[in-house]
Amino acid sequence: EYNMEKENLSVVLHSQGDLRLEQRPIPEPGPNEVLLQMHSVGICGSDVHYWQNGRIGDFVVKKPMVLGHEAAGRVVKVGSAVKNLKEGDRVAVEPGVPREMDEFFKSGNYNLSPTIFFCATPPDDGNLCRFYKHSANFCYKLPDNVTYEEGALIEPLSVGIHACRRAGVTLGSSVLICGAGPIGLVCLLVAKAMGASQVVISDLSADRLVMAKELGADFPLTVKRGDGPEELAKRVEGMLGAQPHITIECTGVESSVQTAIYATRPGGVVVLVGLGAAMTTIPLLNAALREVDIRGVFRYCNTEMLTSRPFPKMGGL
Amino acid sequence: EYNMEKENLSVVLHSQGDLRLEQRPIPEPGPNEVLLQMHSVGICGSDVHYWQNGRIGDFVVKKPMVLGHEAAGRVVKVGSAVKNLKEGDRVAVEPGVPREMDEFFKSGNYNLSPTIFFCATPPDDGNLCRFYKHSANFCYKLPDNVTYEEGALIEPLSVGIHACRRAGVTLGSSVLICGAGPIGLVCLLVAKAMGASQVVISDLSADRLVMAKELGADFPLTVKRGDGPEELAKRVEGMLGAQPHITIECTGVESSVQTAIYATRPGGVVVLVGLGAAMTTIPLLNAALREVDIRGVFRYCNTEMLTSRPFPKMGGL
Amino acid sequence: EYNMEKENLSVVLHSQGDLRLEQRPIPEPGPNEVLLQMHSVGICGSDVHYWQNGRIGDFVVKKPMVLGHEAAGRVVKVGSAVKNLKEGDRVAVEPGVPREMDEFFKSGNYNLSPTIFFCATPPDDGNLCRFYKHSANFCYKLPDNVTYEEGALIEPLSVGIHACRRAGVTLGSSVLICGAGPIGLVCLLVAKAMGASQVVISDLSADRLVMAKELGADFPLTVKRGDGPEELAKRVEGMLGAQPHITIECTGVESSVQTAIYATRPGGVVVLVGLGAAMTTIPLLNAALREVDIRGVFRYCNTEMLTSRPFPKMGGL
Amino acid sequence: EYNMEKENLSVVLHSQGDLRLEQRPIPEPGPNEVLLQMHSVGICGSDVHYWQNGRIGDFVVKKPMVLGHEAAGRVVKVGSAVKNLKEGDRVAVEPGVPREMDEFFKSGNYNLSPTIFFCATPPDDGNLCRFYKHSANFCYKLPDNVTYEEGALIEPLSVGIHACRRAGVTLGSSVLICGAGPIGLVCLLVAKAMGASQVVISDLSADRLVMAKELGADFPLTVKRGDGPEELAKRVEGMLGAQPHITIECTGVESSVQTAIYATRPGGVVVLVGLGAAMTTIPLLNAALREVDIRGVFRYCNTEMLTSRPFPKMGGL
Repeated sequence: EYNMEKENLSVVLHSQGDLRLEQRPIPEPGPNEVLLQMHSVGICGSDVHYWQNGRIGDFVVKKPMVLGHEAAGRVVKVGSAVKNLKEGDRVAVEPGVPREMDEFFKSGNYNLSPTIFFCATPPDDGNLCRFYKHSANFCYKLPDNVTYEEGALIEPLSVGIHACRRAGVTLGSSVLICGAGPIGLVCLLVAKAMGASQVVISDLSADRLVMAKELGADFPLTVKRGDGPEELAKRVEGMLGAQPHITIECTGVESSVQTAIYATRPGGVVVLVGLGAAMTTIPLLNAALREVDIRGVFRYCNTEMLTSRPFPKMGGL
Repeated sequence: EYNMEKENLSVVLHSQGDLRLEQRPIPEPGPNEVLLQMHSVGICGSDVHYWQNGRIGDFVVKKPMVLGHEAAGRVVKVGSAVKNLKEGDRVAVEPGVPREMDEFFKSGNYNLSPTIFFCATPPDDGNLCRFYKHSANFCYKLPDNVTYEEGALIEPLSVGIHACRRAGVTLGSSVLICGAGPIGLVCLLVAKAMGASQVVISDLSADRLVMAKELGADFPLTVKRGDGPEELAKRVEGMLGAQPHITIECTGVESSVQTAIYATRPGGVVVLVGLGAAMTTIPLLNAALREVDIRGVFRYCNTEMLTSRPFPKMGGL
Repeated sequence: EYNMEKENLSVVLHSQGDLRLEQRPIPEPGPNEVLLQMHSVGICGSDVHYWQNGRIGDFVVKKPMVLGHEAAGRVVKVGSAVKNLKEGDRVAVEPGVPREMDEFFKSGNYNLSPTIFFCATPPDDGNLCRFYKHSANFCYKLPDNVTYEEGALIEPLSVGIHACRRAGVTLGSSVLICGAGPIGLVCLLVAKAMGASQVVISDLSADRLVMAKELGADFPLTVKRGDGPEELAKRVEGMLGAQPHITIECTGVESSVQTAIYATRPGGVVVLVGLGAAMTTIPLLNAALREVDIRGVFRYCNTEMLTSRPFPKMGGL
Repeated sequence: EYNMEKENLSVVLHSQGDLRLEQRPIPEPGPNEVLLQMHSVGICGSDVHYWQNGRIGDFVVKKPMVLGHEAAGRVVKVGSAVKNLKEGDRVAVEPGVPREMDEFFKSGNYNLSPTIFFCATPPDDGNLCRFYKHSANFCYKLPDNVTYEEGALIEPLSVGIHACRRAGVTLGSSVLICGAGPIGLVCLLVAKAMGASQVVISDLSADRLVMAKELGADFPLTVKRGDGPEELAKRVEGMLGAQPHITIECTGVESSVQTAIYATRPGGVVVLVGLGAAMTTIPLLNAALREVDIRGVFRYCNTEMLTSRPFPKMGGL
């Protein structure tokens, strides 16, 4: 008979393609940690990618690793030095916890700290398990009107927050979002919440654009394979009556990065969220001469303060 | 018989208390100007103040001046060099037009240019009249879904936009607004549109707070004369569960400025929108040691790009 | 016989006026700490203030406290987890070490963290002693061309760095510095190193201004008690040919804060470094209408990366 | 006999390869203009490029155009509305003058205004002639200690200022500059003047690096054709003991842009000053995942306020 209070069933990736459900010991929280009973853990594209490929870029699964980093749970044990949480608190988990007080952490960019712990990035274990311990400072109490499921989705939402902050979205911004998958949609939600006045969102799939429209997109743009980047840029300008201030590229496809550059207004910003190949051919001269800045995002930081209010239902994600 | 197409009935302030309705010639637009038939012009507190006092600070009415600067109208004649507008266009008027390419204009802060033209600030004429000419570059075409009345209200809205931008309001900001008069309310609307998660708004009048609540305020705070600034700051902290990141002071009252400083979180911002006495006694040490920045606003600049989308109905203002 | 290697002679303030030289145990560094043999420790105005008054504002000496926070020394023992330092390293000490991963630390403003440890701020012990342990992450290896004495002076220099960064000093800035004491002088050195083109520095003492001139000030301004703030502001404008972009107020005197506001150019910044009375009467309306921002500084953060190069000799300080 | 006071000998490019010295009428300044007797006009690489190729990108010489845009001269006639200059003033010329009050000009980025006038960019005439009229607001009076020759060099210096501002160079910045030609050297001078603590500068030519060293470069790096970008990045890191915060790319060569990205610290900035081919292949993923921002520069704006002080002799340029 399974005893949910005592066992710690975990989803463990041993190596490429070798995924196992197995028991792990229930961990003991350190002085600044809390033990969580996990409630909801999303399956991210990266989890699937590690399972199928055993690696993402330089991150290689060399020893068994618990998957999962989009997570919410309930505090069941509190470390001796913890002040911000107590047993029974419902929390969302920020999966990245800096290990060292290096220059990145000190200056507010802990996501760039090379020694950061991050759930389900080899060799760090994730939280797709029954019981999981985490730094209490990186667990955030959920308001009563936010469910565990929504709490777990704060993690992908944070990607959108970080992208829109890096982009400088503000009241009156016009925005092009390339790609209407889950990350494109959280960028859409966040851009609108930050005051973007007009959002064009593009995708190959008309179905995805239907949902984007429901979530607030002003102009869905159906793209076909082979559409030329400059021509797509013209179509975006036609829709908005002007080039967008900001483009958020969520596909990682080379031609889409090219479109992003051509489409953006002089003095504007292209933010790269989608990940593509190591080398990319882009109209860099066009970007440089029009002072269109190109900025990447690596995960996120300091988004917790931005997620304490009710946000739109995202069940469809 | 009155001929609306040929006469230019104007509201002219000759001196303190001496307000006259009189005919003025219909002006001829210069090459970069448009002639407008005015439709809606708001009466601002400053118009009333000039009428009753003949001056605001160093600005003194020394010769007859047309009042009015919250305005929208229809283009009836177009200067020879104008490209952005044509006859029949419905426009909102930005009343401040820089006269010189000085350092302030060149660096994007034309509102600070000492030689700027500004409607109904002595000695510059305003637009509370039938026909008025203005720089075409400072007239903005209204979308079809925005009425003339709303168009005229873009001017006070711009004060809120400039205040919230100076404050750095963004997604997740918690904000205290002191004063729920017209300017407090536009700050509220703009703060919410920029993503503020929680807004406390305070006023002596419970009625005003009812409207603030309708417009989206999360926490109305009724203040009584004599309430201590530090105690009010505590009440704000209690409502929000933490000190607000930002306080927007819209009363100009000394004790309210004090409350604004005490209330704001370390590293936060107090924006001064309300105008008070020349000298003010404030807890400057408290602000300095907690790095609470104090920033004023003088009118606004570059808000036109932010007002091209539908905004909440503001009939009550 | 005194054994410098085994004894830890320390300067301990027991209470107002009760300063004692006494032996303390040599501390044992924790895993992330280093033990330092102190070489040079400056005596700051605040050390003297604690000795004479037993308190600074809300910080009250309630139990014996070692003084000193401007310090440099040699690493004599290294905690087990320390990677950035080794025995024998000569280091400067950053006296503030955040204790909690709170919002201030996470966002790069750890100086504002309310629970920060800070040397010689009650109840935290300073380092005016023979042996002292400190977080290794807040000890910075000195280049070979920087002496221990200079290393100790990095602490007051950091105040100037933080002040000039908060002010936004950059290439071409014109700057007024009120007060030519040690902090005024470090602000001068830093402003010049950041590219300020013209610096006016004012003081009651002509002698202090002589040194300021030697250290690079362009315009010394001798002030007399009773000089009117507005008239002083005019004199500054006359010297520079324009109002300064930035004023750094280092005296804390009310009339000087007033001068700072009147003197600064529209759109400029007043930074408050000097500490005055709890309540201050200032021309806030003048500042607000000209959008002159008022910003305090509380200690500093993230200055270490800025101090790794040779800087001007500061023996005179 | 040649009458220098009455004739206007001008260097006119008629078409690719067809450069003529010819007389042009002396222009009459408009109300806001001044007539200048030119003294020193630099020959920029772009002047030579137009001569040899008849075009730069989309800018094509279709009718005769006076060359020259690095210029200084003496005011000989003043337009009726000019207040900032008088006959006899020695001035440097900012060659770009915005023609319209568009969104770019209003927001302080007039260099991005698509209708800007710019000397010697087709079809706008330059100032390599005896007499030239220009907007008085874009002529800057030279201090007595700045020669005409230096005045003319303020134009290329402005490119360095704009590049270093876009890069965010400040006190303590470590900087890699790719290319030690004239523009690399002005970037070096400006970076040092802004407080950069360490500058590596690279070039194929050892001779150029000798001059760079004389002008303040800390680390000259001789590059050989075929050196791998990643290996060069490692060498830079080795020289500095850490990756540079900022890289300023002044060659436009693809492999050098690649080096710039690999070399720059996470969270840092690559500024593109050199112009290369329309399409460039770069390690965009590497930049994105480390949040290394890529920013171009197009000419400059608002640099005049930064050039009013004596700057290092640049005779060698």
